[in-house]
Parts: sequence; structure tokens; C-alpha cells
Amino acid sequence: MKKCFGIDLGGTTVKLGLFEETGAVLEKWEIPTRTEENGKYILEDIGNALLGKMAELGLSKEEIVGAGIGIPGPVMPDGHVAFCVNLGWKNVNPGKVLSEMLGGIPVYGGNDANVAALGEQWQGGGKGHASVAAVTLGTGLGCGIIMNGKIVSGNKGMAGELGHVTVNREETEACNCGNKGCLELYSCATGIVRLAKRHLAASEEASVLRNLETITAKDVVDAAKAGDSLADGVLEESMDWLAQGLMFVSYVVDPEVFVVGGGVSRAGDFLLDKLRRHYDRFMVMAAEKPEIKLATLGNDAGIYGAARLALDL
Amino acid sequence: MKKCFGIDLGGTTVKLGLFEETGAVLEKWEIPTRTEENGKYILEDIGNALLGKMAELGLSKEEIVGAGIGIPGPVMPDGHVAFCVNLGWKNVNPGKVLSEMLGGIPVYGGNDANVAALGEQWQGGGKGHASVAAVTLGTGLGCGIIMNGKIVSGNKGMAGELGHVTVNREETEACNCGNKGCLELYSCATGIVRLAKRHLAASEEASVLRNLETITAKDVVDAAKAGDSLADGVLEESMDWLAQGLMFVSYVVDPEVFVVGGGVSRAGDFLLDKLRRHYDRFMVMAAEKPEIKLATLGNDAGIYGAARLALDL
Repeated sequence: MKKCFGIDLGGTTVKLGLFEETGAVLEKWEIPTRTEENGKYILEDIGNALLGKMAELGLSKEEIVGAGIGIPGPVMPDGHVAFCVNLGWKNVNPGKVLSEMLGGIPVYGGNDANVAALGEQWQGGGKGHASVAAVTLGTGLGCGIIMNGKIVSGNKGMAGELGHVTVNREETEACNCGNKGCLELYSCATGIVRLAKRHLAASEEASVLRNLETITAKDVVDAAKAGDSLADGVLEESMDWLAQGLMFVSYVVDPEVFVVGGGVSRAGDFLLDKLRRHYDRFMVMAAEKPEIKLATLGNDAGIYGAARLALDL
Repeated sequence: MKKCFGIDLGGTTVKLGLFEETGAVLEKWEIPTRTEENGKYILEDIGNALLGKMAELGLSKEEIVGAGIGIPGPVMPDGHVAFCVNLGWKNVNPGKVLSEMLGGIPVYGGNDANVAALGEQWQGGGKGHASVAAVTLGTGLGCGIIMNGKIVSGNKGMAGELGHVTVNREETEACNCGNKGCLELYSCATGIVRLAKRHLAASEEASVLRNLETITAKDVVDAAKAGDSLADGVLEESMDWLAQGLMFVSYVVDPEVFVVGGGVSRAGDFLLDKLRRHYDRFMVMAAEKPEIKLATLGNDAGIYGAARLALDL
């Protein structure tokens, strides 16, 4: 059976995986990301890591059907990366460079959020579904759209920028993007903390959150789970806005399933049940609604999706 | 050169067209839609019309590469129509029935709004672009999404239901769908009339609209073009909400171009310039934004798109 490599290139670590075509992971390891001198050593390090692994396991290049790499920035359809702030790159085609190092094994590049979504669609929470919208609730809000098993990048790579849809025109605080009322202001770790501070300031209601010097999204989730009513109200509001965002996705591409991952999703069904309830409220028109499921691959979604990029299933 | 038929099945009229594979229309005609007895004669009438045209022009079935038909209701990927209220149909596969009548010529079915969007992408305002979002501002607001030259129907046919995305949570009036604050409440002929009445009631501002017994969307456009400030404000608000809807489409699938059609779009660039200005305001993040263009095929978009369905370009 043929094999492929999945590469998830992050700002501090490169995650690497060797996969069977079926999606079974054979090896998984990491190397540091050397960002010095505008990241000029990164691809060399990755190429050597892959060649080393092939030598170690006695794999010929004929046995490797290809490799995929997730990049933390915009990637053009031909794999060209005009710039990547986190890595210091300008005008690199990482797939082309790696392919040359690997003796012609094809290497495909994609944006890391989209690639992670592809991983969840292939082997994670969206397994068995051809069209999946994967939402990542981390420090910010990310989203990747997979249709018929392929990443939807959009014409200028803006597809899945769900964090910046305007949901609340009444909002007075500005988002990093310059707009006001973006979904990311409410529905991610930072957004939950922001909402918590706002709810605390807006009332005198007792809450364990008042005793904390700094508040994290996990504090809010833990308090809500323990019955803290103010914390619960914060999560309700956060999921209400997110549900509106999922509605937009449904009424534009109507995916089979939503998969929710990222640090905040560790709150599990306690949080997702709120999201499902608000989503159902918005989707009055829909006879059958897509399921909202938890992501299952965690930090490995990127290497899975990158490996999937290399396969023409 | 091979030819194909495009059929646009409406509640009162069936529009038919014979096309070259290149998109050139050779013949265009109409027959009435006989909805009596739950529409049982409709497909027979269409089949006979096509067979008649082939006989008239001396075309053999080998010269016809296929036909497409746009249906005013939901169509499953296999062409099955579970119900179609306007026609009285239940559990019909119109493509299959027509194909049998036509001696095996393949016939493909699709939802009429999506098929019209495909027509605009193929030979209309979106010509030359592989991914197009076509918005129709008629009595209601319709939308069809075309990606890589193919219709995006979505899992349950809800893709492109842009009229029912919630844009305004502060709205107190309900939409037909049961929700409040749907885009369709503001951005279509009915929505413009509704906004006009609201603006008239909310101020004492002089306006020619005050002299009218009944107000149409065209009245509002004409008044605004003639310098009526209240009417202009109505169109500004209408296009402001629509711009927010286009933003959702951009941040979900990022099309190359938007094409705006339907009766309201006859207002032309006077209206579209307002839309473009509001859209640009929302899309602060985007370095390059998709163009917003006028549809060009008018009522023929359906037969063009249906003909395109029949071609595997």
C-alpha cells in the first residue's frame, strides 16, 4: 500500500506524519521551526526530516505517493506563498522546493486552517461526510469549508473567514480587522473572556468569576458547569452569536455537518448543546438540519489534512 | 457541432431554447404550463415540444448532446422532485421521464434559481468567471452559488438561501419563514416597499412618495434617481443590508464575482453603486474584492443555465 507524508508547519514546531492511503498514521514526530534568517532553513529541515524517515524505514520514493504541507498564511492555488509573516517568508513555493528535495515526489500546499478542516473531514469528526464546515474556537475563530472532499479556498483565499462576518451592528468595540461586530469578538477564547468582563461590569450578580484576578475561557466554562449563572449567560451569548455564523454557512453552502474544534471545544457537549439550541432557533426554515459535532483529531488535524492533500482519492 | 436544449419550467409558462455547445442560442420559444390534474401533462407537453422542434429542424437525437430543466422547487442530486407546490407534482423525476420520451437523450434537472445562476455564470454577467454568486432581486431575494462552473446545491438544497440569513436582530416584523430580521425583509422589491413605508412613517420629510396611493420598488428607484432624498435613503438602507449578505457569501466561499439580477436590478448602476460602496465598507479585511456586476440575460438566464446543465464542458 502506498504511503504519504503530512506536514503541519507552525511558527515554533513542525509536526510531521507518515500515513497509509487509508488514513492510518504510521509515524508521528516533530522538529523545531527555525525562523531565523527569514525562515530560510525551514524547508531544508523538513526535507531532511522526510528523507531521514524514508532512509530509516527503508522507503523508496516510489512508495510515497506524495506529501502535503499546511502553511500558516495564504496559499495560492498553485502553491505559491506571497508572504508568511510568522515564518518570515516572501515569495516561496514550499511544495515546489520540497518536491525537488524529495526527488520529484509531488508536494501540495494549503492554508493551515483549511488543511486542518480537511483532516477533520477525512478522518475526524466529519468522517463519512463529503461536505463539512470545520470551526476552530481557539484564541481566535477559524473556519475551513470542505465540499465534495475538497478545500474551498475561494478566489482570494478569503473563504472560511467566518471570524470576520458582521453579526452585531450595535457593537461599539472594534475588532483587529478594523470592523465592528465581527463574530470573533464573541465566539472564541478571547471573545468569551471579553463577554465575561462585559457581563460582570453590567450587573451586580454574584459570580465566582468576580474572585479571579485574570479570567480565562476555561474559567468561564468551569464556572458555568459548576452552576454559576453569570458564567452560563456568557456562554449562552457566545454560542448564540456563533449559531448565527453557522446559519450563514448553512444558507450559503449547506454543509452535511459542522465540526467544532479548538481549545474552547474541550468544554464538550455542555457547550455544543447551547450552540445546537441557538442554531435550531435560527434555522426555522430547514426541515433537516446538519449535525453539529465535536472535532476528534485535536492538534493532529493538520498532519491528517496535509496527508490527505497528497492523495487523489 | 452538437446541440442541447434548455428548459425553464415556470408556473404559467415553459421557456424552451435550442443551443449550440458554445452557448449560442439557435431557437427560443414558449409553451403554456398546464398545471391541471397535478401537472400530469407538463412533461408530455415539453417532450412533444422538443420532439416537434427536432422534426421541424431535421435534427436526429445523435445531434443533441442532452437537455437540462430548471424546476421551481427543490431537486435532489439524482433529479428526483419530492414535491413542487406550484406545479402540483409529487415524487417525479422529470429528467428521467423526459429522457425516456426523447429516446434516451440525457436530461438533467436542477432548481430554477440555481439553474438561472449557472446561466449567468456561463453566458451572462459572470461569463469568464468559474465561481459566481448570482443574486436575484425580485419579489423576494434569491441566490445561486456556482463554484468551478458547477451549481452548489448543498446537502439539503439550502445553499444560496441568502434571503433568510438574519442580518438584523433588532427587527420586530416577522418574515414569511417565521424568523425576524431576514435579509429578504430589506433587499428585494417587497423589502424596498416595506422600507419606504417605514421611512415615510418615521419622519415628516417631504417626498414624492407621499403622493402615491400605492408604492412600488420602481417608484422608489425613480424618485431616488430624480433626487428625492427620502427615497434615496430607502435604497441606501436596502443596499446596506444586502452588502452585509454579500459579505457573508464572501467570507464563506469567496466568489470571483457577484452578479445581481431580477426586476429591481433594472435600476442599474445607480443602485449597484450604493451596494458596492456598502460592500467595500464591510470588506475592510480584503485586499482585493470581487466585482459586483449586473446580470445580462434577464428572463433567459433559466434556459441558458438549463442548457449548460446538459453540457459536460
